[in-house]
Amino acid sequence: MIYFTFDPRPDLKSDLQSSLPNEQLIFAKKIDPSDFAKAEIIVSYGEDLTPENIALAQELKWLFIASAGVEKLPLTELKERGITVSNVRGIHKTPMAESVLGHILAHYRSLPTIYKEQTQHNWRRKMPSKELRGQTALILGPGAIGGEIGRLLQAFGVQTIGCNRSKKHAPFMDRMVGFDDLLTALPTADIVLSVLPSTPQTYHLLTTEYFLAMKEDALFLNFGRGTLVETAVLQQALETHEIAAAVCDVFEEEPLPATSALWQLENLTVSPHTSSHSSRYLERSFELFKRDFINYRAHKINELENLVDLTAGY
Amino acid sequence: MIYFTFDPRPDLKSDLQSSLPNEQLIFAKKIDPSDFAKAEIIVSYGEDLTPENIALAQELKWLFIASAGVEKLPLTELKERGITVSNVRGIHKTPMAESVLGHILAHYRSLPTIYKEQTQHNWRRKMPSKELRGQTALILGPGAIGGEIGRLLQAFGVQTIGCNRSKKHAPFMDRMVGFDDLLTALPTADIVLSVLPSTPQTYHLLTTEYFLAMKEDALFLNFGRGTLVETAVLQQALETHEIAAAVCDVFEEEPLPATSALWQLENLTVSPHTSSHSSRYLERSFELFKRDFINYRAHKINELENLVDLTAGY
Repeated sequence: MIYFTFDPRPDLKSDLQSSLPNEQLIFAKKIDPSDFAKAEIIVSYGEDLTPENIALAQELKWLFIASAGVEKLPLTELKERGITVSNVRGIHKTPMAESVLGHILAHYRSLPTIYKEQTQHNWRRKMPSKELRGQTALILGPGAIGGEIGRLLQAFGVQTIGCNRSKKHAPFMDRMVGFDDLLTALPTADIVLSVLPSTPQTYHLLTTEYFLAMKEDALFLNFGRGTLVETAVLQQALETHEIAAAVCDVFEEEPLPATSALWQLENLTVSPHTSSHSSRYLERSFELFKRDFINYRAHKINELENLVDLTAGY
Repeated sequence: MIYFTFDPRPDLKSDLQSSLPNEQLIFAKKIDPSDFAKAEIIVSYGEDLTPENIALAQELKWLFIASAGVEKLPLTELKERGITVSNVRGIHKTPMAESVLGHILAHYRSLPTIYKEQTQHNWRRKMPSKELRGQTALILGPGAIGGEIGRLLQAFGVQTIGCNRSKKHAPFMDRMVGFDDLLTALPTADIVLSVLPSTPQTYHLLTTEYFLAMKEDALFLNFGRGTLVETAVLQQALETHEIAAAVCDVFEEEPLPATSALWQLENLTVSPHTSSHSSRYLERSFELFKRDFINYRAHKINELENLVDLTAGY
């Protein structure tokens, strides 16, 4: 039995059921312990799973997370039980890359100023208008999403530098650096972008020293996880103009509290963790689930598209 | 003698003079009749040239316009005298395409709403988040600028339809239509973009009938010339939601008067004719001028990069 811990649109449900005619599908907004105990496969956004309810699901073999971050999952329990976990990180790449490119171009072409002047009925032609072509972007975490961003940036004539642990070549990166080289690479970048997951290694990775190493006119974007930068460090970097501007889709505390000083920083754009949103999100997730399901039933677990490494945490 | 009707940055002037060591260069913000009369080449933004001062310039052979639009030039007088006119339309393509893509992505990813909610300290996650991938764009005027926009749109997975008079294939267009086919092509497009010049043929071309033919959720962008659409037609199309939204960089009257009703349309972005602005604008113009100058001195007039057809007016 396949247990969905959410209730999708009727057309998506009937499509799934007709694609998987021999499977019993249960869709439930609230976890029902008796059904949950019989679930062989659980499909969830991942935020409703606890050590306790995972312990209930004694038949569970495969957990399909319809989201990208897995840091809220009971990773230890899942690992001990040998449960296969996969997620949908691939499907975020299109909306996320479109959001990132939109924010970068908005910054370079002064769109926030254009919108603001319009409210004043002000035909103001003098405003900074930089060209993206010829700039350099440093991408922390050049995986599926980072690579798609790199591909689009290259189409705009931007040099891309990927930064990962292995320094192994990643697609759409003109060159690679390791985290050890970051302080040397940062001064060469006009755009510094993170799509890193939340792991012990990335926790508060970008200290003040790193922001000081960036160009004064650098644009910083965090579209990975808020734990990458301590809030006070980010606030200081923007207040003291260590960098020109930032766009954050993620924060240490989400929702960002209404009282946070970050809301008022004129050189910070607060994107409310919407960059991966898409009207086609669940449709894409279920397409991926159906592909994966064929491999799962054929016992080809290693061919699931986005297996989560429960030890590494991504 | 080469007469510049503007006074560029000192570094750009000295670079020009050292690149053209045997030429006398005069830079003047205000046209001096006695020098002007001796000018063999005039370099101008094009807005300061009248039939009267062109009549003064009896030595004039080549007019280099450091802008794209030539509709304000005394075309009849220039044509009668057989004066070569070229412009810099090629150099606009990078900043213009970056502006256009920025505005399109801002619309698809709800950036104006994100900015607005930030001013209210409002973590609002529900907002329209469409994907650009898979959309269709109709590009009126797929020349140098339209082609660059097409190239970038294709990188985002957008189908491109070019519309010109000849229907002859244009680069980065998946297919071509003619102006006769426009009413048939408009209902297929999610994005309708014009970079058409101002000519008798394009004057008030897009009547209400054309806006009614567009999709209700279409985004219209005018980055060519404001004469393409009568202001009242545009206003009505937006007020009655014949289309979802528009972004205009050009208007029938510029500057757009502070009293214009357009400023207040919530589904119109007023971009104050800044899309071609770039911190590298003059540098690029002069690079082009230097290349053209070599061909000019070698009497290879047909090899100037952007010869203006004085009859067609672009």
